[in-house]
Amino acid sequence: MRTLTGIQPSGSLHIGNYFGAIKPALTAQADGDCFFFIADYHSMTSLSDGPRRRANTREAALDWLACGIDPARSVFWKQSDVPEVCELMWILGTLAPMGLLERAHSYKDKVARGLSASFGLFAYPVLMAADILLFDAERVPVGKDQKQHVEMTRDLAIKFNQAYGQTFTIPEHEERYGVATVPGLDGQKMSKSYGNTLEIFGEEKALRQKIMSIVMDSRSREEPKSDAEKNTAIQLLRLVAPEDVATDCEARLRAGGLGYGDLKKVLFEHYWEFFAPFRQKRAELAADPAYVDGVLADGAARAREVASGVLQRVRQAAGLSR
Amino acid sequence: MRTLTGIQPSGSLHIGNYFGAIKPALTAQADGDCFFFIADYHSMTSLSDGPRRRANTREAALDWLACGIDPARSVFWKQSDVPEVCELMWILGTLAPMGLLERAHSYKDKVARGLSASFGLFAYPVLMAADILLFDAERVPVGKDQKQHVEMTRDLAIKFNQAYGQTFTIPEHEERYGVATVPGLDGQKMSKSYGNTLEIFGEEKALRQKIMSIVMDSRSREEPKSDAEKNTAIQLLRLVAPEDVATDCEARLRAGGLGYGDLKKVLFEHYWEFFAPFRQKRAELAADPAYVDGVLADGAARAREVASGVLQRVRQAAGLSR
Repeated sequence: MRTLTGIQPSGSLHIGNYFGAIKPALTAQADGDCFFFIADYHSMTSLSDGPRRRANTREAALDWLACGIDPARSVFWKQSDVPEVCELMWILGTLAPMGLLERAHSYKDKVARGLSASFGLFAYPVLMAADILLFDAERVPVGKDQKQHVEMTRDLAIKFNQAYGQTFTIPEHEERYGVATVPGLDGQKMSKSYGNTLEIFGEEKALRQKIMSIVMDSRSREEPKSDAEKNTAIQLLRLVAPEDVATDCEARLRAGGLGYGDLKKVLFEHYWEFFAPFRQKRAELAADPAYVDGVLADGAARAREVASGVLQRVRQAAGLSR
Repeated sequence: MRTLTGIQPSGSLHIGNYFGAIKPALTAQADGDCFFFIADYHSMTSLSDGPRRRANTREAALDWLACGIDPARSVFWKQSDVPEVCELMWILGTLAPMGLLERAHSYKDKVARGLSASFGLFAYPVLMAADILLFDAERVPVGKDQKQHVEMTRDLAIKFNQAYGQTFTIPEHEERYGVATVPGLDGQKMSKSYGNTLEIFGEEKALRQKIMSIVMDSRSREEPKSDAEKNTAIQLLRLVAPEDVATDCEARLRAGGLGYGDLKKVLFEHYWEFFAPFRQKRAELAADPAYVDGVLADGAARAREVASGVLQRVRQAAGLSR
């Protein structure tokens, strides 16, 4: 079972990303055949700043490698190092009815949120279909917002197979499994667009301040809190501290006597400790750019080998090659 | 001044194609730097039959070479042999507002004529922009129906230059010059979609029948025809016969005494003779597939060399490469 995951190079990783996307990806990596790519072509739909894209792409590579992508087990590359994906996008696009794309929630949502209605945003699901089909991916773990895109990919693969003969593996959508909901500083779901994030690789001082600013209610230290399990700090603690620490803090809140300030201090310590090995790994990687370049170049070569085989089938079937 | 012309591989050439597109292209070739490509990616928007596309592409190569494309002077290749054009299409597409594409007459017309509204048709102008910009083309001779697409190409090139820094040459649209309007068998403009065409490389018997079936009025042989210059056979004769032959026939119609049947016989003879060297060249080419393959491979290599340089600039500016 080949699993494919695209990574948006969109700036600093936060722990919502870690527990929502990276950890599930690492679980899949432990199972075997994984393909991970940094989606720099996709980033063009929202960013038109070349140097920033280059920097973001590099940061994403460091972040994901530091978090545990293992280039010996998985194929890890930068999307634009395998430009064949754009060719497949054109080919699939010629079979896509406009209605299919006009019904895409994600496009409609983005436009409703104020992004300008560009062809790139509109065409996004076709490029995503090419991302998936070019590597014969079978499993595509995505959030609910992307489920429809995987269905479109299946539609296009089936259409191509019908028009030109059996060519593509039909992928399965898979809801990310075992995914924790990570609350943000304000108690809402953690999301960059809410400005309520905790970064994985932030500075110590800034992170401490952020954690100390987690929104709490006005109940006194002594008051017993029967809803302690809903406390944002407790929920975050459950993610980053050993189980007994979180359970102990929750019991002390419930009984009364643990102040929010002290709770946050405990959270910060465990938070900082939890990501210590990641920080160390990241610093090592950042100090060795040639190694990271090598990893991406090697990944691109391996990805391209798979892509070439698939594209050869496609071109032959479509009458583009002999 | 580099001139770029795309060739639709859509079946048998007719003399409307010859006098409307091929002859002007040959005039440009005589001037110098010409790029000609067989648009097999574009053909996917209207044909989803692989073997037929392969055959049509081969026919188009034979047709255009037989008509006078000179691979020693011009760069002549098959579009899908330089798949870089699809990458540039994605990149340009991320800068294209939906409104720009929604205003495309050609898309609206095709859908109004009953072609299904596909993403490929919709995206067609973006691929065309990539076709033009990938080769630093300066002059794009097109008919009126394509003028808007060249304007879109200019828009996208300017947008890219503004967003990412000076990268693209801005092309000029150019109405095909010296283009004769070629009447079809029924007197309307010759067009495949009207079913009123005369093929360049048709069989002798079928062509003779077609010419003998040109629609005429019911006036008798003897009646003087003061509107002789509007006669379809006279107009065609002006294209394929020496000037004095056409002038003489026209005068005889005007005076009365030349029957339509005899006129058509004269037309057929000159038609057949006019294209004789083309037929001979085509037969030679068809007998030497390795030569044609070599021409296209050589053209692709030369086209790719230009494309790589442009794409390197683009990727660097857009932050996809270092």
